[in-house]
Amino acid sequence: MNPTPILDGISRPDDVANLGFDQCKALAEELRDVIVETVSQNGGHLASSLGVVDLTIALLSEFTPPHDQIVWDVGHQAYAYKLLTGRKDRFNTLRQYGGITGFPKISESEYDAFGVGHSSTSVSAALGLLRAKKLKGDDGHVIAVIGDGAMTGGMAFEGLNDTGHFKENLTVILNDNQMSIDKNVGGLSRALANLRSSTGYIKAKSRVERFLLRIPLIGRPIARFMRMVKTWFRLLIRRNTPVIFEDLGFQYFGPFDGHNISLLKKKLRIAKEIDGPVLIHIVTQKGKGYPPAEENPSIYHGVSPFDRSTGVKPSETKTFTNTFSDSVVRIGQKYDKVVAICAAMMTSTGLKSFRQHMKLRFFDVGIAEEHAVTMAAGMAVNGFTPVVALYSTFAQRAYDQMLHDVCLQNLHVVLALDRAGIVGADGMTHQGIYDISMMLSMPNVTLLSPCNFAEMDRMLEYAVSDCTGLVAVRYPRGGQSDILAKIPSDEGIGPRVIREGEDAAILSLGVMCEQALLAAEELQKQNISVRVIDVRCVKPCDADSWKTLLKGISNVVTIEDGIAHAGFGAYLLSVLEENGAMSSIRHFEILGVSDHPLIAGNRKVLLEKERMDEKAIIDTILSC
Amino acid sequence: MNPTPILDGISRPDDVANLGFDQCKALAEELRDVIVETVSQNGGHLASSLGVVDLTIALLSEFTPPHDQIVWDVGHQAYAYKLLTGRKDRFNTLRQYGGITGFPKISESEYDAFGVGHSSTSVSAALGLLRAKKLKGDDGHVIAVIGDGAMTGGMAFEGLNDTGHFKENLTVILNDNQMSIDKNVGGLSRALANLRSSTGYIKAKSRVERFLLRIPLIGRPIARFMRMVKTWFRLLIRRNTPVIFEDLGFQYFGPFDGHNISLLKKKLRIAKEIDGPVLIHIVTQKGKGYPPAEENPSIYHGVSPFDRSTGVKPSETKTFTNTFSDSVVRIGQKYDKVVAICAAMMTSTGLKSFRQHMKLRFFDVGIAEEHAVTMAAGMAVNGFTPVVALYSTFAQRAYDQMLHDVCLQNLHVVLALDRAGIVGADGMTHQGIYDISMMLSMPNVTLLSPCNFAEMDRMLEYAVSDCTGLVAVRYPRGGQSDILAKIPSDEGIGPRVIREGEDAAILSLGVMCEQALLAAEELQKQNISVRVIDVRCVKPCDADSWKTLLKGISNVVTIEDGIAHAGFGAYLLSVLEENGAMSSIRHFEILGVSDHPLIAGNRKVLLEKERMDEKAIIDTILSC
Repeated sequence: MNPTPILDGISRPDDVANLGFDQCKALAEELRDVIVETVSQNGGHLASSLGVVDLTIALLSEFTPPHDQIVWDVGHQAYAYKLLTGRKDRFNTLRQYGGITGFPKISESEYDAFGVGHSSTSVSAALGLLRAKKLKGDDGHVIAVIGDGAMTGGMAFEGLNDTGHFKENLTVILNDNQMSIDKNVGGLSRALANLRSSTGYIKAKSRVERFLLRIPLIGRPIARFMRMVKTWFRLLIRRNTPVIFEDLGFQYFGPFDGHNISLLKKKLRIAKEIDGPVLIHIVTQKGKGYPPAEENPSIYHGVSPFDRSTGVKPSETKTFTNTFSDSVVRIGQKYDKVVAICAAMMTSTGLKSFRQHMKLRFFDVGIAEEHAVTMAAGMAVNGFTPVVALYSTFAQRAYDQMLHDVCLQNLHVVLALDRAGIVGADGMTHQGIYDISMMLSMPNVTLLSPCNFAEMDRMLEYAVSDCTGLVAVRYPRGGQSDILAKIPSDEGIGPRVIREGEDAAILSLGVMCEQALLAAEELQKQNISVRVIDVRCVKPCDADSWKTLLKGISNVVTIEDGIAHAGFGAYLLSVLEENGAMSSIRHFEILGVSDHPLIAGNRKVLLEKERMDEKAIIDTILSC
Repeated sequence: MNPTPILDGISRPDDVANLGFDQCKALAEELRDVIVETVSQNGGHLASSLGVVDLTIALLSEFTPPHDQIVWDVGHQAYAYKLLTGRKDRFNTLRQYGGITGFPKISESEYDAFGVGHSSTSVSAALGLLRAKKLKGDDGHVIAVIGDGAMTGGMAFEGLNDTGHFKENLTVILNDNQMSIDKNVGGLSRALANLRSSTGYIKAKSRVERFLLRIPLIGRPIARFMRMVKTWFRLLIRRNTPVIFEDLGFQYFGPFDGHNISLLKKKLRIAKEIDGPVLIHIVTQKGKGYPPAEENPSIYHGVSPFDRSTGVKPSETKTFTNTFSDSVVRIGQKYDKVVAICAAMMTSTGLKSFRQHMKLRFFDVGIAEEHAVTMAAGMAVNGFTPVVALYSTFAQRAYDQMLHDVCLQNLHVVLALDRAGIVGADGMTHQGIYDISMMLSMPNVTLLSPCNFAEMDRMLEYAVSDCTGLVAVRYPRGGQSDILAKIPSDEGIGPRVIREGEDAAILSLGVMCEQALLAAEELQKQNISVRVIDVRCVKPCDADSWKTLLKGISNVVTIEDGIAHAGFGAYLLSVLEENGAMSSIRHFEILGVSDHPLIAGNRKVLLEKERMDEKAIIDTILSC
């Protein structure tokens, strides 16, 4: 890492306002250097953070948090902001357990106005902050910074609609980088593209006007006429401007070069002066300043640690995601009624290959999980079997659509829930630990959790070919250990014994089978023989199967990578109780995530902290 | 009810296409008569159904379901459609158990293309239907009919954005009646209002043009010039048109009189011919044809049975909703940091009075539950205590916002969940039976369920003044029985004994205390003494309190108006098991809604069918 003299001189965010033109430019370089260096070591969100370094400097030059409040949509672009708001000394702990989180977080800093992680929340949150300020008579400004990708999320529209109607004094900065994680889609993105290509003319007009004003006598009247023409012209070319924002009640300014700090400062000053909602449209380049990321922003969106000099290398490790990628292609080729749907995450969910093979049956709907699920329901009505690939945490956005549009109508839709369970460094807002609880109460649901790649491939096909209703196949981030890989596949999706034993049973869900098998192996050394059951199917739950599987067992431990008190364990307990199967069970212990937000940290650390590792299982069984 | 000769002559929906101008008009009158008559007897959604009678006739004249598919957003306006698509003979069973449902439902009729109930799903669903048709090579049309209210829901925007981008051949009919249930809000609604008032000019131009064309020699060139001017003019007045739809990729037509059947038919024919997405903007009057409903569309949105000749009379019955209405005013006056938020349902959630008293602290955000909750979170960050009033079923739309924006940040937001539990005639899509399961897994949640008005008033104040995090107070549709009214209030919110007994305990949630007390009374006659515990607080759950309350009890029955296997009962069971309290309990039975969609019917019937009435409790205890 190079020296960072300017950054080192910034002890408070206000100091940024005192920097001159050259210092701002130098600061931007320093920030980019620190970000690239830190992310190359810790992993993280690179491309988007590099894209808004200049904007961040401009914002801190013109606004003074915490009095002014800035809400970063999604928040993975806030690294420069963190560095400039008192967190540079701890920035090397980025995304580590107990370290600086990868997203803004109220409890981390008074400068983080609102915690984020999921997309499209910034306008709503900022409007709430602003309305509260107004009621208190506080004159601070509130700014929402939102990408063109996040703008495709309906919630952002709801926020803009409310803000515009009541003419609230909010500044929205539309950070247009033409990308979600993959290339952006949606009618709105076309409108923005038209706009980016249509504004040369207005600038040219202004130059002509300046020239005319210098001509004596006739210059001024001609210029006046020109201005009239220009007004007409402006209105005429409105077909190429995103009048959508003006329709919603915003004053629109842009598009501007989002890497020109002086220009940005000027425009932000204007926004400060204007009464009522303002939208400033800036164009930025994802990955700006680090050539490999500029060239491949999708690859550098979120990265694992990499060698800075050579860039990110394609990973050799087989993961659940790329297993899904292969499976869904295989299944799509076998069943011609299968269609695949994603919400702006074609690459990260593994659907790229499906698109290459079966383009007509692939749909990327933008950052719009709600629409994705209901659109899928529509396709299901007309005879197709949609596979909707979402990260578990983002599927939360489509709770009502799953329940109201898919389950109540008993339509056959398959959800491929990636990043289910503990996700690690992305932290609190991205943990895939709520999906089980979320779907347990819905009718017509089948909820499957494979323990390894082979099982996942098999379950996915089963979900498509043998099920009805909403079928979720949930699988974790990352790959399978050797222990998991060795668990054989067999027919069916019901619970099954994967290790025999008589003294206790561990009922483990999905990849938690690893911890279960390790615990059983360890207990064997103490002459305690433990039966390990691979749960596979959370729901439906067949009481008779469980009675058979638990025959002769009086100590039961369940382990799941979900919320302990509202997930599989609690559900099975109630089923067993209802079916009179608890009379022979002395202890029934439920292990899983406790009832609190689960912060960032690597999986191993979090499993230990949550008492979900093999040691916790062993202790639980020994204390029975 | 008057004779309905034209309606009687329609045996298949196609027959509508053969009707002449006068017959269509007469049919519209007949339909309105049947709708007013039936709703006055059964209750239902009157104003919106009357508003689209003419549109329905026009649609069935030009399109032929089920080959063409029509998706009605929300669906409470589909009564005329039901009458014309094979359901007139059973229409008198509207909204009754086993009868015609109040909303489109796939399983009820092949003419219902997609089940609806919650707002803003139609564009997504219709797009899914269409994409499936396209893949199958089926040339049928797909039409989404969506109100201007529903258009404020973000999900509709997501659907439009996707449709527009891919230029899908979808017809969207924007039914602009300037209303949600209350008067509409949002920047979009302003744009539509501008539009309605700005189109006179284009019509005038066309008349001038027709006149010019009749003038020999100079007429034609002048007309040509006029056309050019007109084009310019059109572009100029675009500032008053909802270019928003064109920005998103739609061809926009309108606004047209939505009660002019011939005009509507003409416009629908044009839409059929056009390739790519079309939005037809029609203006209708809610309640059209029944004067009292025309004058007070909010009151006639959803009604209980009423006398047709005198109209709906203000109800004298005190309900949980108007108790809430009084409470929130009282609390707002006592605590100056309380603000109230609703999603387009000011009157129905009971916030009208709050608005009258504390206008600056009231916010109606449009049909936008997601935005409502996150906006509330923003206000909470800056020191206010928002009370967000939502129907339980619509709160489902804000699942992710509750979890991600409120709970993970431990912000203090109060949810007033009206229509929790069994709602009755609105049926499947409106049952408030999922809220407990939905919130159980979220951290930093307090979930309260009062048994009567007094308790609700007290809990609401407690939620505002003594809690942190997300606090939900859930209460049912309707009023309190005498039995419930007599349950005394006392301090605290924890579980408490409301009837002593030793042989068994009934743990009843909220208004289910009525069934519990009735059962206990009945069992007393058989010399079985039953302790009844008013649960009050689902979460947090204090194991020690429960141990004390259940001392000496070996038979426990829980009863809740939520999903039995994923709600309070199952949760408490796991807490008791974890705390070693199950060893002294022989039977633990969980009563509640079974794992299936719960159809329409009055509360009494549904409680019986779901085995949730006093008889079911008695049987359960007797079989222990």
